[in-house]
Amino acid sequence: MRAAGPVSPALRGPLAIIAGAGDFPPQLAGLAADGGRQVFVAALEGAADPAAFGALDLRSYRLGQLGRLLEELRRREITDLVLIGSLPRPSFAALRPEASTLKYLPHFAKAFRGGDDHLLRGVVAFFEGQGFAVHGPAEIAPRITAPAGALGRKAASAAQKDIIAEGFRLLAALSPFDVGQSAILADHRVIAIEAAEGTDAMIRRVGDLVASGRLRIAKGDGVLVKAPKEDQDLRVDMPAIGPETLRNVAAAGLSGIGLRAGRVLIGDAASLGTLADKAGLFVEGVAP
Amino acid sequence: MRAAGPVSPALRGPLAIIAGAGDFPPQLAGLAADGGRQVFVAALEGAADPAAFGALDLRSYRLGQLGRLLEELRRREITDLVLIGSLPRPSFAALRPEASTLKYLPHFAKAFRGGDDHLLRGVVAFFEGQGFAVHGPAEIAPRITAPAGALGRKAASAAQKDIIAEGFRLLAALSPFDVGQSAILADHRVIAIEAAEGTDAMIRRVGDLVASGRLRIAKGDGVLVKAPKEDQDLRVDMPAIGPETLRNVAAAGLSGIGLRAGRVLIGDAASLGTLADKAGLFVEGVAP
Repeated sequence: MRAAGPVSPALRGPLAIIAGAGDFPPQLAGLAADGGRQVFVAALEGAADPAAFGALDLRSYRLGQLGRLLEELRRREITDLVLIGSLPRPSFAALRPEASTLKYLPHFAKAFRGGDDHLLRGVVAFFEGQGFAVHGPAEIAPRITAPAGALGRKAASAAQKDIIAEGFRLLAALSPFDVGQSAILADHRVIAIEAAEGTDAMIRRVGDLVASGRLRIAKGDGVLVKAPKEDQDLRVDMPAIGPETLRNVAAAGLSGIGLRAGRVLIGDAASLGTLADKAGLFVEGVAP
Repeated sequence: MRAAGPVSPALRGPLAIIAGAGDFPPQLAGLAADGGRQVFVAALEGAADPAAFGALDLRSYRLGQLGRLLEELRRREITDLVLIGSLPRPSFAALRPEASTLKYLPHFAKAFRGGDDHLLRGVVAFFEGQGFAVHGPAEIAPRITAPAGALGRKAASAAQKDIIAEGFRLLAALSPFDVGQSAILADHRVIAIEAAEGTDAMIRRVGDLVASGRLRIAKGDGVLVKAPKEDQDLRVDMPAIGPETLRNVAAAGLSGIGLRAGRVLIGDAASLGTLADKAGLFVEGVAP
């Protein structure tokens, strides 16, 4: 379908970005388009904000319009796609399948039974089964992930780097249990471990413990670490931080954030770096 | 000082119970006295409730009266002691050392610098250095810990026992990081892991996630697991559950509790079993 060449297919032909909520989908679309890629945005209704994608080629779809989306991708001879952005719990109206989508339902009914991770793997397997190549955001635009080194002016100290390394060891030990995308450590004590509550709720919990006097964290001591689980599918389930994460980390009295470079979505590095500087935080990417 | 015999010294001579807050100190004192042991209760002011110990031989001490306590123990020729109960953050008034206590301060100043675990080890080392034998509550009265098997009428199902086993593996994986006395799992997914917030706050968090619709736990599926860390000093730092734990577990919609038998304090087994029955929970002790 496409001529072979020195550039891998994933870096050439038209790219479909199936976009959920948040800043990452328009950021990725912008980076891909800036890189000379022909981009088609499939904005999921109720999640993606079409206005955020500027002049890019965009159509909106309900989840129940999957059949229509597949037809459009085939009409455009698009085989490369990225799924990015969060998907709020869909309403029944959004799920209501059109006739062209009904035949795909058994596949998803099966995937739905196995929990979130299973569902994501099912979605990837579905698109692959339909002949598409599903790419991770980092393959399309590495700049959308945490770079190695400090993001802003402040770098982690040697002691803070030790805490980050300990945190990564902790998260790795949790990986076999399919849990632990992030944790908060202070002076080598583990203060909080994320499970079902999510990263932001975990950070706020630590802030509350400190505010109520039940926990003391010395200045420069508290660090949020975030990294994917070892078997996490980075194509569709990459951990992420954003402005809200930084604001929560600052409010909780922590000193900074340690991230696995290339494996955590950060979106716009420049604006996040500026925000880190304003908040007096370090955001340190550590190469795997 | 005492005659040798077939019963170990720990099970014979007079026993001092240095008592903090909560139900465990009077329960342990009662069990030891019922077992024929001569018991002296050193009630820590602001923590232990002297009235809870009935007619037992008791004196109250501020933390700053450590010297006076040591003199009393020596006068009574007591060499066996147990430290039990929680210790709220002491007031400065409680700490104000008497003259007879001043000489011991350097020992504690050093221990205080290393965090809670370090402090507890420091306290044990201090009493040992003064010639005392520090015993764990389980040595004095095994019945104060979780028995193997079901505490009430309801036993864990085979599936629930699988979840408990998975939970114990999770806690064991966390042990090298000196964290993780408890966790909540459901259908083999890890829902919550305890760190600085404590067990009760962790259970309430899961209850809040369920109540807000952010998390669904199927009936019979959610289990609290609790076990000591591998290097935890069970003489002075044994994990515990009590009536409040059961009430929180029931309120969060969990189905029961899995405990390491003999290694988690439960206090009065009969009343806890009755409470479990009323709440429709299982409380299952699993032998190590």
